[in-house]
Amino acid sequence: MSNPRQISLNIFLYSFGHHEASWRHPSSQPGANYSARHYQGIAQKAEASKIDAVFFADVPAAGVAEYSAGGQLEPITTLASIAAVTEKIGLIATASTTFYEPYNLARLFSTLDHLSGGRAGWNIVTTGHELVGRNFGFEVFPEVSERYARASEFVDTTKLLWDSWEDDAIVFDKENGRYADASKLHEPNFHGKYINVDGLLTTPRPPQGHPVLIQAGASNDGRAFAAKYAEAIFTAHQRIEDAQAFYNDIKAQAVALGRSEDDVKILPGLSPFVAATEAEAQAKARELNELTIPEYGLGLIRSNLAGQDDSWFTVDNLEERVPLELFADAGDVTNNNRSRLQVIAGIVEREQPTLRELLHKLAGGRGHQVVAGTPEQIADRIQVWAENRAADGFNVMPPLYPAGLDDFLDHVVPILQQRGLFRTEYSGSTLRDHFGLKRPENVHTRNSALV
Amino acid sequence: MSNPRQISLNIFLYSFGHHEASWRHPSSQPGANYSARHYQGIAQKAEASKIDAVFFADVPAAGVAEYSAGGQLEPITTLASIAAVTEKIGLIATASTTFYEPYNLARLFSTLDHLSGGRAGWNIVTTGHELVGRNFGFEVFPEVSERYARASEFVDTTKLLWDSWEDDAIVFDKENGRYADASKLHEPNFHGKYINVDGLLTTPRPPQGHPVLIQAGASNDGRAFAAKYAEAIFTAHQRIEDAQAFYNDIKAQAVALGRSEDDVKILPGLSPFVAATEAEAQAKARELNELTIPEYGLGLIRSNLAGQDDSWFTVDNLEERVPLELFADAGDVTNNNRSRLQVIAGIVEREQPTLRELLHKLAGGRGHQVVAGTPEQIADRIQVWAENRAADGFNVMPPLYPAGLDDFLDHVVPILQQRGLFRTEYSGSTLRDHFGLKRPENVHTRNSALV
Repeated sequence: MSNPRQISLNIFLYSFGHHEASWRHPSSQPGANYSARHYQGIAQKAEASKIDAVFFADVPAAGVAEYSAGGQLEPITTLASIAAVTEKIGLIATASTTFYEPYNLARLFSTLDHLSGGRAGWNIVTTGHELVGRNFGFEVFPEVSERYARASEFVDTTKLLWDSWEDDAIVFDKENGRYADASKLHEPNFHGKYINVDGLLTTPRPPQGHPVLIQAGASNDGRAFAAKYAEAIFTAHQRIEDAQAFYNDIKAQAVALGRSEDDVKILPGLSPFVAATEAEAQAKARELNELTIPEYGLGLIRSNLAGQDDSWFTVDNLEERVPLELFADAGDVTNNNRSRLQVIAGIVEREQPTLRELLHKLAGGRGHQVVAGTPEQIADRIQVWAENRAADGFNVMPPLYPAGLDDFLDHVVPILQQRGLFRTEYSGSTLRDHFGLKRPENVHTRNSALV
Repeated sequence: MSNPRQISLNIFLYSFGHHEASWRHPSSQPGANYSARHYQGIAQKAEASKIDAVFFADVPAAGVAEYSAGGQLEPITTLASIAAVTEKIGLIATASTTFYEPYNLARLFSTLDHLSGGRAGWNIVTTGHELVGRNFGFEVFPEVSERYARASEFVDTTKLLWDSWEDDAIVFDKENGRYADASKLHEPNFHGKYINVDGLLTTPRPPQGHPVLIQAGASNDGRAFAAKYAEAIFTAHQRIEDAQAFYNDIKAQAVALGRSEDDVKILPGLSPFVAATEAEAQAKARELNELTIPEYGLGLIRSNLAGQDDSWFTVDNLEERVPLELFADAGDVTNNNRSRLQVIAGIVEREQPTLRELLHKLAGGRGHQVVAGTPEQIADRIQVWAENRAADGFNVMPPLYPAGLDDFLDHVVPILQQRGLFRTEYSGSTLRDHFGLKRPENVHTRNSALV
């Protein structure tokens, strides 16, 4: 089992790296971001450093990506190919409850868990981008509260599908020709407002019982959903005070629902530039910032402001200070995109950057914290957050693959290990083992007093 | 390129083997049928023999499998894990146009094609089992003609999604910060009766242009669909005359639609018991037949007769001859299950078996031809069908994994190679190369006179 003082570390897989200009770095090679070998290599390197898991975000839509390394392979399939060349590291895929059918998605995650010997995790999203609706024939894009209502039914159904075979349903009695015990197979027969699923899943119960459930939305609906269902949360905070407020809110909501604080791990994003001196680390960040295309970053800000006046955000204003009043509506947390907009508004309020400075600030982590420093400085930051109820670990977003990953794994992780904050060997072989999470009992075998 | 005299050989992956009692064989180990290693090992062995592809059937539903090794991992994910440990062999997954969204499925297959360097194939099915509808909230199960109407729109949309990035859409101009050429990205904007998809796919065009399209339905709707879309067809025939009639029908329909006969490969199923003498081969078949559970086979016959009187099919009648009149309605080809029923009716008419004999006959190949013989006899059968317009190759269904596969690969394939009927080395590295199929041009770059 995991040591409670120890943190979790995920590596967030993303194209050539999390900095939007990473593809322009001299080390980046065309096509690597669509190749199995690229992601397999990252995962193997992370596994050698005893990292908890690798993780893919996902949006089932693509904009016209003229200035950025757009496009992404489908995450679950890509993780299945990583599973084949690794043995311990967790494999977390994002998938949308709004745009999948639960029977199909339950099978995909159960299969990934079987193929990997219990290493699958599902980052549950409801997908707030209207663009996606048009790829799935939606005439009206559902509001956030409706999306979360469907998500609840979706996850409830998925758990029933995973539990539709008891762990010992297969008797494999060759002598008497009896393969399965029919009394240990349970049809979900779920009939909700959004979801109807009757039959058994095609796979036996996943090795982990249920793949680990993860959530990333920071809206009010998202937090309530996470407090109920999530076993880990990916979140974005620039400042420790904001992270602590989020951390305490989620843990309190979970406890109010009868869960333990340890049942839900909170993992903020962190994009580290690491070098022997702070000046060298900042030079690494500057090298990538200078490769950004302003039109691209402006487009991202405008998409976050969708529905509000975005006419000020043009290349003509790059050297002007960003007026805070342009974010007057950012406090209205109505959907997932709003939570990212609040992060941007916070930067503008605290740092009064020029538009170019803001674009550079966002270019590294898309709203997640970007830190440039020595290995000790990065480790200190991680330790302070971990020891002060701001984080149970981090979702690490290397600005550049593979060099930025190597910097972190080769120089920061050993310091965390020396300090006793991170494992030096895997103590188990499933993602639940790494995260220190219980294996869920099957709903059909729980003590009836507890049902 | 493939030699036109040479045939194609696929290995049909299926649990412990295609014989329904294979799980009871002494060599079968519990859990192997849900493990990556089992299928990876089969594919690696097949690749060493230069086999064209491995293939998974699929139905997104599970019955209560008390007497058979039920359940199956999701095929696309499993093939992704096979892709990681193989280099040349094709990877064909079945997936349903009735129960998937085209945007999701187009991504899954495109990703499999990218991960494998161009080895993906999609066996397109419309899924005729009403049981499945209840797993997806269908109140009314669509008729076969409606399912195929949706399938046509689905495949048309999927091709537009795969073509939404031209092959050279990514310019990767680091110097000028230009990643993609926006003029080479094309939104599908497909608006049909069943399907609406607007936006670009998240992946660049698959290495093969389009993963190879395969089809398996033998109903009239299925044949018309196959003649238009399929590049390979999996089919089931007991007798060469029936196979020839099917072969000539499909090729004629394809030619009438402006395609070449070589654009669609016809691959009947073949389940071989191979041994040094015919008597030993028959003993291998008998060993498995004697392990069958009559209740299981009776259930399969009853499900094929759905809607007709099936009360005669009980264990009390095992030693009675099967009355042909029980199959009086088998000629009515209204859905996919009917084509399998016709095969059963044909066996009853020609061979006048007892019910037990019929169950043994069906236990090996579920309606596909089962042949027990010496390596030369099996090779002769393959050669006769291949040289007399009954088959362009075979979908090989080993009765038992791994022993039945090894028998075929180690003893039959070398004879086919000696006779010049099968390759001794791969001449290319994609499934299209192995099947001798053209790489489809992108619809957006075809000569405008041809559009």
